[in-house]
Amino acid sequence: MNKVHKIAVVGYGNIGKYAVQALNRAPDMELAGVVRRARSARDVPPELAGVPIATSIDELEGVEAAILATPTRTTPEYASDILSKGIHTVDSYDIHGELADVRRKLDDIAKRHGSVAIVSAGWDPGTDSMIRSMLEFMAPGGVTYTNFGPGMSMGHSVAVKAIDGVKDALSMTIPLGTGVHRRMVYVECEAGADFETVKEKVLADPYFVNDETHVIQVDDVQQLVDVGHGVSMERKGVSGATHNQLFNFEMRINNPALTSQVLVAAARATFKQQPGAYTMIEVPIIDFMYGDREELIKRLV
Amino acid sequence: MNKVHKIAVVGYGNIGKYAVQALNRAPDMELAGVVRRARSARDVPPELAGVPIATSIDELEGVEAAILATPTRTTPEYASDILSKGIHTVDSYDIHGELADVRRKLDDIAKRHGSVAIVSAGWDPGTDSMIRSMLEFMAPGGVTYTNFGPGMSMGHSVAVKAIDGVKDALSMTIPLGTGVHRRMVYVECEAGADFETVKEKVLADPYFVNDETHVIQVDDVQQLVDVGHGVSMERKGVSGATHNQLFNFEMRINNPALTSQVLVAAARATFKQQPGAYTMIEVPIIDFMYGDREELIKRLV
Repeated sequence: MNKVHKIAVVGYGNIGKYAVQALNRAPDMELAGVVRRARSARDVPPELAGVPIATSIDELEGVEAAILATPTRTTPEYASDILSKGIHTVDSYDIHGELADVRRKLDDIAKRHGSVAIVSAGWDPGTDSMIRSMLEFMAPGGVTYTNFGPGMSMGHSVAVKAIDGVKDALSMTIPLGTGVHRRMVYVECEAGADFETVKEKVLADPYFVNDETHVIQVDDVQQLVDVGHGVSMERKGVSGATHNQLFNFEMRINNPALTSQVLVAAARATFKQQPGAYTMIEVPIIDFMYGDREELIKRLV
Repeated sequence: MNKVHKIAVVGYGNIGKYAVQALNRAPDMELAGVVRRARSARDVPPELAGVPIATSIDELEGVEAAILATPTRTTPEYASDILSKGIHTVDSYDIHGELADVRRKLDDIAKRHGSVAIVSAGWDPGTDSMIRSMLEFMAPGGVTYTNFGPGMSMGHSVAVKAIDGVKDALSMTIPLGTGVHRRMVYVECEAGADFETVKEKVLADPYFVNDETHVIQVDDVQQLVDVGHGVSMERKGVSGATHNQLFNFEMRINNPALTSQVLVAAARATFKQQPGAYTMIEVPIIDFMYGDREELIKRLV
C-alpha cells in the first residue's frame, strides 16, 4: 500500500545492528546499505551478506533516508552533511541540554535542502518525552518523576573507563523513586592498579558526586553486560481543579532494540513531514506507524 | 505569549462543569460562555455568575472554538452545525466503531468552512489511543491489552436503567486482566418491581451477556457514585527481532476531570491545525500544550 523507501544505516555498532533487524521487519522500507569506517568495511559479518557496504553514503544508490547509528557527539555533523544532500536523517542524539539547539541548527539546513530530520528519536529522549509531554497536558499541575533502570548507563560507564588504572567498567543505574538514582559501578582494574585509588576517583567524578554510588571490583566486566533497561515515569497532578490524578508509565526493555525500532519508525515519519527538523513531540503519532490511515484510526483510536 | 482564545462550552452536565474548571486554569483561553437548553438556562449555578449563558452558540460573542460537552450520540450533529459557522470544535465522541466515520464526515464540513475539529478527545478514545499507537510502533509485534477500571461505565449503566422496573442503576467495570472485565451492577428497583426479573433481564442484555456479571440490589444507587476510574494498558511485544519488550501504562483518575482537561488541550490544538477533522493520534503532541515551543522542547524532550 505504501511505497518502499530505501534507507541507509550509518554506523554498525549496537544500534546499527538492531536497526538493520528492525528495518528487516518493516514492510514499507528496505535497507539500501550500511555505511562503516574504512577499517571495518572489509570484515563483513554474516548477517550483512549481500548488503551493500560503503565508507560513504554517496556510494549507496537511491538512499532516501539515513538512520544515524553513530556516537551521539558526532551525530549533528553527520546529520548536517547528509541533510544537505537532500537525504532525510533520524538520530537518537541524547544530550538533553543541547538537543533543542541541535534541532534548530539542523532545521535551517534541512529547510534549505528540502530534507527532513527527526532528532533525539529513541526512548529518552524520544518516546519518554512524548509521554512526559502528554502527562503535562492531561494534568497541567503537578510533578513528573522519571526513574531509570535497572540498566547500564553508557555515559557513566564511559566516565569510569576514562579513569587511570581502569581496564573496563560498567555503571548500573538503580531507580530509588522520585527521580533519585543509585549508581552501582563495576570496575576491572589494570594489572598493578590500586582499586582504592580508582574508587576514590570514581566517587569524586562529577558524574557520580551527587548520587549514592557503590564501587565494586570485579574480574571480568563483560560477564555482567546485559542490555536490558527500564523506566518508570510517574506523575501525580491536577486536571482543571481536580487533584490526585495518578499516572505511571513503565517499561522493561532491551535498550538498543527499542532505540533502533524507534529510529525506524522515525525514518518512516520523515516522509510525511514538511522540510525541517523535528523532535518526536512535534510529529503526529500516526506518522510513525505503518498502515492505512483509516484502518489505523479504526483499530487504535 | 499566546493570543487568548475565546472558547464556548456547549452542554453543562458533568463534562461541561469540569471543562469550565479546566478553561479557568488555561492561560491562553477564556470562557466565551456556556450553551444550555432553554429550560436549564434560567437556573444559573453560582460558579457561572457573570458568565454569558445562551441557548444557542450564535448568541455568544467572538467564539473561536466550542467544547462539545453534549451526550455522545448528539455530538456529530452539534459539531457539523458549529463547524459550518467557521468555529472549531472538540468532542469526546466515544463510540469506537463509529468514530472513524464521524471524523471523515466532519473532515469534509470543516474543510469547506475553514474550521478544525478534533474528535474523540478524551482518555479512551483519546490519550489511551495515543499510547496504544505508540506502543505499536515501539514494538510492532505483540498484543496490547486495555484493562479498564475499577470505575463506573456510563454505557452499561444506561443500559440497565432502560430495563422495566429499574429506578436507578450503576454498572462498575472491574479489570480481570488481558482485557477481560467483570461487571458489578447495582440496581435500585421501582416500588413493586421484582428484582429477580430485573436481574435476569440484565444478564440477558447484549451489554452484559459476554462478561462475568453480578447484579446486586441496593436501596440508594446515588450513595455508590464515585467518578474515579482507571486503566492499565499492557503490551508485551517485539522490537525488530527482539522479543519480550514489556510496557505498562496505568492511571487512576477522576474521569470527567481528565476528559475535560483533554478537551481543553484539544481546543488549544485546533488553532494549530489546517482545516479538517483529526483524531488525537493525527495531531503533534506539542500542539496540545501551553507554552513556548523552544522552551517545551528544552524542558520535556
